[in-house]
Amino acid sequence: MTDDAAWQSGDRIFGDWGTTRLRLFRLRDDAVVDQQDGPGIGTLNGAPGDALRATLEPWRAQGMSGGHVWLCGMVGSRNGIAEVPYAECPVDVTGWRTQTRIVTLDDVTVGIAPGLACTGPDGADDVMRGEETQIFGAMALDPALAIGRHAVALPGTHGKWALIEDGHVVRFRTFLTGELFALLRDRSTLTRAGDDDGDGDAGFAAGLVRSDAGGMLGALFEARSAQLRKGRSRGWAVGFLSGLAIGHEVREALDTIVGVDSLTLVGDPVLARLYHQALARHDRGVTVRDGSEAALAGLRLLAEQA
Amino acid sequence: MTDDAAWQSGDRIFGDWGTTRLRLFRLRDDAVVDQQDGPGIGTLNGAPGDALRATLEPWRAQGMSGGHVWLCGMVGSRNGIAEVPYAECPVDVTGWRTQTRIVTLDDVTVGIAPGLACTGPDGADDVMRGEETQIFGAMALDPALAIGRHAVALPGTHGKWALIEDGHVVRFRTFLTGELFALLRDRSTLTRAGDDDGDGDAGFAAGLVRSDAGGMLGALFEARSAQLRKGRSRGWAVGFLSGLAIGHEVREALDTIVGVDSLTLVGDPVLARLYHQALARHDRGVTVRDGSEAALAGLRLLAEQA
Repeated sequence: MTDDAAWQSGDRIFGDWGTTRLRLFRLRDDAVVDQQDGPGIGTLNGAPGDALRATLEPWRAQGMSGGHVWLCGMVGSRNGIAEVPYAECPVDVTGWRTQTRIVTLDDVTVGIAPGLACTGPDGADDVMRGEETQIFGAMALDPALAIGRHAVALPGTHGKWALIEDGHVVRFRTFLTGELFALLRDRSTLTRAGDDDGDGDAGFAAGLVRSDAGGMLGALFEARSAQLRKGRSRGWAVGFLSGLAIGHEVREALDTIVGVDSLTLVGDPVLARLYHQALARHDRGVTVRDGSEAALAGLRLLAEQA
Repeated sequence: MTDDAAWQSGDRIFGDWGTTRLRLFRLRDDAVVDQQDGPGIGTLNGAPGDALRATLEPWRAQGMSGGHVWLCGMVGSRNGIAEVPYAECPVDVTGWRTQTRIVTLDDVTVGIAPGLACTGPDGADDVMRGEETQIFGAMALDPALAIGRHAVALPGTHGKWALIEDGHVVRFRTFLTGELFALLRDRSTLTRAGDDDGDGDAGFAAGLVRSDAGGMLGALFEARSAQLRKGRSRGWAVGFLSGLAIGHEVREALDTIVGVDSLTLVGDPVLARLYHQALARHDRGVTVRDGSEAALAGLRLLAEQA
């Protein structure tokens, strides 16, 4: 056991508990000293509390006793540890974090962040659980975002584009890009014609170009016909679908978010690079911020008010 | 055994052999007297010829000996009985059917229709196998389609919209609507929030309205948020996805096919009714033609030239 490993009384646990996985970070003086991973809310067979207990077990063995765990994500849904009502937009950091729900699990205090809900100009509802913590975290890390009108994009399975005005999340929209791409790649007939996995970058670039013309439903099948007629590889087709989907997301999102002072992309670096390419076609500059860093900054906002 | 069941020497067999199923029709004097179904090209474990033999077996038992089988669909792909090169657009019925490939299977002559390929104005390729037979069949059933400029829509798993000019299929585009809808309904997270299957029609209507605003990627998630926030049922969400996808297909297709004298919808009556609803929003009149009837008329064109 290293010195770091022994539990110290000031150690805190921050976590992002989404549909597919649980990631717990142990922080000491704002630095991450250890990490534990567990099952996602969508993959649980038993009670969420039992899954959290099991994931905390290694730290128990190192002397953890009592203390705080701060969580965001699907842990606050009806399938999570406790359902936390959505905070309604427009909402700023104070309005959001005061709706944190505190529950106890054995000797541990668990704080669960509320998600956000909004109703768009067309009457359509939208919801998020987890991304709001990254958005408020990004604002904490970059105080310039608290003044004026800004866009924050969080690409992913259910990618979000949020509009921020003077520190308030005003509205946001969910894009199914990541889930749709995975379905098309893994479950559709579009990528079955070939077997060579090369040329993904060329396919991605071609998909981006194709997205300029609009009409996604009538463009998807080109992934297949290019294999049958132009000898493209399976890898090219997968890249094409990725470029087409990301290109359309960026087009659609920029159509609805206009007149902003800045655009911040919060996410993992690999995905951020792809979105960067798509945004460059629209001559849009973008600031990239790591998603885990933003989540930790947001969870710190919860912990600070406690 | 009825009188019909005994094989007569003039009996012919027409068939549509697609990815998911084989449908064989036995015709006598242009009337269907019997039908046999078999496995689709995409579901075969053994040789396609063996599957055809097995599907013909009941008719062998009724005295079938020699004769002709006329087939269209994926049977002409590389995974079918024999690969038949695509006929290139623009192409009329003569240019198409002279490229029919004739092979023999035991004592039976098997004629396999070529599919069509086209290259759009943007350089993108597209292909079809099976729908061309329905298109030429629809033209044979309605001679008015052979003069002037017309659109033929064939909704389905991979829906096609074809532009016809003076009897030639000039170009066409594939829409992934049916496959995408099935993936979203059966495999996505969008329809899992509720369990009540009612309200599908109301959902469909709402999806059509939503499609007017464009931006499909950013609208799909509304199927889920309407369940979480507005208490919509699972059935409503499935209907919404169907309306959204069909509404977008119709929008996209009408954007690229302009200045036509008529629009004909070839397909099964249930699907045709849904497309009829979507087209009505664009004030577009449409003639509906049964898909099986059109396929048989197209296969008759192959048989007539032999």
